[in-house]
Amino acid sequence: MSALKVAALQLAFSDDVQENIAAVADLVREAAGKGARLILPPELFEGHYFCRTQDEAHFARALPADRHPAVLAMQRLAAELNVYIPTSFFEADGHHHYNSLAMIDDKGAIMGVYRKSHIPDGPGYSEKFYFRPGNTGFQTYRTPLGTLGPAVCWDQWYPETARSLTLQGAEILLYPTAIGTEPHDPDLDTSRLWRRAMIGHAVSNVVPVVAANRIGTEHGQRFYGHSFICDERGDILAELGATETGVIVADLDLDQARRHRAAFGFFRDRRPDLYGRITQDI
Amino acid sequence: MSALKVAALQLAFSDDVQENIAAVADLVREAAGKGARLILPPELFEGHYFCRTQDEAHFARALPADRHPAVLAMQRLAAELNVYIPTSFFEADGHHHYNSLAMIDDKGAIMGVYRKSHIPDGPGYSEKFYFRPGNTGFQTYRTPLGTLGPAVCWDQWYPETARSLTLQGAEILLYPTAIGTEPHDPDLDTSRLWRRAMIGHAVSNVVPVVAANRIGTEHGQRFYGHSFICDERGDILAELGATETGVIVADLDLDQARRHRAAFGFFRDRRPDLYGRITQDI
Repeated sequence: MSALKVAALQLAFSDDVQENIAAVADLVREAAGKGARLILPPELFEGHYFCRTQDEAHFARALPADRHPAVLAMQRLAAELNVYIPTSFFEADGHHHYNSLAMIDDKGAIMGVYRKSHIPDGPGYSEKFYFRPGNTGFQTYRTPLGTLGPAVCWDQWYPETARSLTLQGAEILLYPTAIGTEPHDPDLDTSRLWRRAMIGHAVSNVVPVVAANRIGTEHGQRFYGHSFICDERGDILAELGATETGVIVADLDLDQARRHRAAFGFFRDRRPDLYGRITQDI
Repeated sequence: MSALKVAALQLAFSDDVQENIAAVADLVREAAGKGARLILPPELFEGHYFCRTQDEAHFARALPADRHPAVLAMQRLAAELNVYIPTSFFEADGHHHYNSLAMIDDKGAIMGVYRKSHIPDGPGYSEKFYFRPGNTGFQTYRTPLGTLGPAVCWDQWYPETARSLTLQGAEILLYPTAIGTEPHDPDLDTSRLWRRAMIGHAVSNVVPVVAANRIGTEHGQRFYGHSFICDERGDILAELGATETGVIVADLDLDQARRHRAAFGFFRDRRPDLYGRITQDI
């Protein structure tokens, strides 16, 4: 067995950028201290989840990767600790704005930027106001640890995202997230649905999944945590509750997952000739 | 609320065709007596799960729908009880053989035949010896109850099947199954994975799922039951264990599911332009 130690971080955020980056850095150090080589912070950890409202002032936060404080800080930290840090950030590219992820390698270099493909919109989650739907397509990153398949929050509900990443070679799926209560419906707790969708992706693609969510209450919107790491059969290896701050670490055996994936035969028996409806825009 | 009462049947089978059909008919009557309008028996209920071995004698069982004893019996029963019975059967069509499903309406007519698209192969499940991969594509059936989306066993592991059926209008997914222990690996119990994959489909597509599996031990191969009905959020509404014979019935609210599906926005936010990899045969 070649164990890969991975980690997810869960914490609450304020509107103080430097304070948030420092809090994430502390947990990254803790995870690295426990031996994690791949460490996933939550989505858009630089500040409050600003998509709760539609306010043009928030566009001031968007910057290119090479000037974004969260990305720059994680690059320095990754180089220092020799860890991979998939880093979610609000990206500006000329007139366009994206909900993006910089894949930072263990030398602190940016391997590439993925732009969130699926953009939600609903009470408390007005992302379509801020983010253009991503134009990068799904991106996988070959590393000595294995091939990494990141996606961002809303992407995590889409079987197409998980399948596309796995078909492109992903051996582990990574989902930074900011999700919580639904202001319009206090009875709707989507946390169990959120896990079910991703555990379904794990099983259907025979691939481990790491999900990192924020916690805390921001202007009445409560983020529900429940960050987890599961293996290629969907068994939970490590998890956090709705209010705990902290780090979860788990050992993944990607060689075993590869054998399981081959023996199940799901990919062998696919019928691409029958899947045309999935790519039709109707 | 317009409640649709649906049922799944779970039982063991012998090699006596008439006995098996009679046992299924008894449970169909029980389900209809409880008010179910749509009643799902397990896969290939006419006999033992013959795919455990490769034996040309079993091809004698394959018949066209209009001459197959299981289909004919369910047509009579559907007409008598005014219920829909999606009926799995071993179909012969000239030189070809398929693992098929006849959608029988509440007048006893065959609305159409779906041929299982994904054919497994592995120790104890030598289906590739018997069944040609289906050439019908995924089929949905519009009925006064709602639009039905049937698939067969191995299909149930595929996100593509569930998504394609839902995109084609399915408001409920139906999976007749024959699955159990893995003879080559006594430690591998796939029953929890089996449920996770389908519950993932329910959540990702915001659609209820009905799954009917067989039980009993056949020549050392134990079928693990765990038939269930879940709603569009993946919450289990009714279920059976690994050894119980019986009927489960649940009320589905397809209008509510339609509202949930719209409000989640999963279909609104799809990116067919990015899903090309899913249909590439590479």
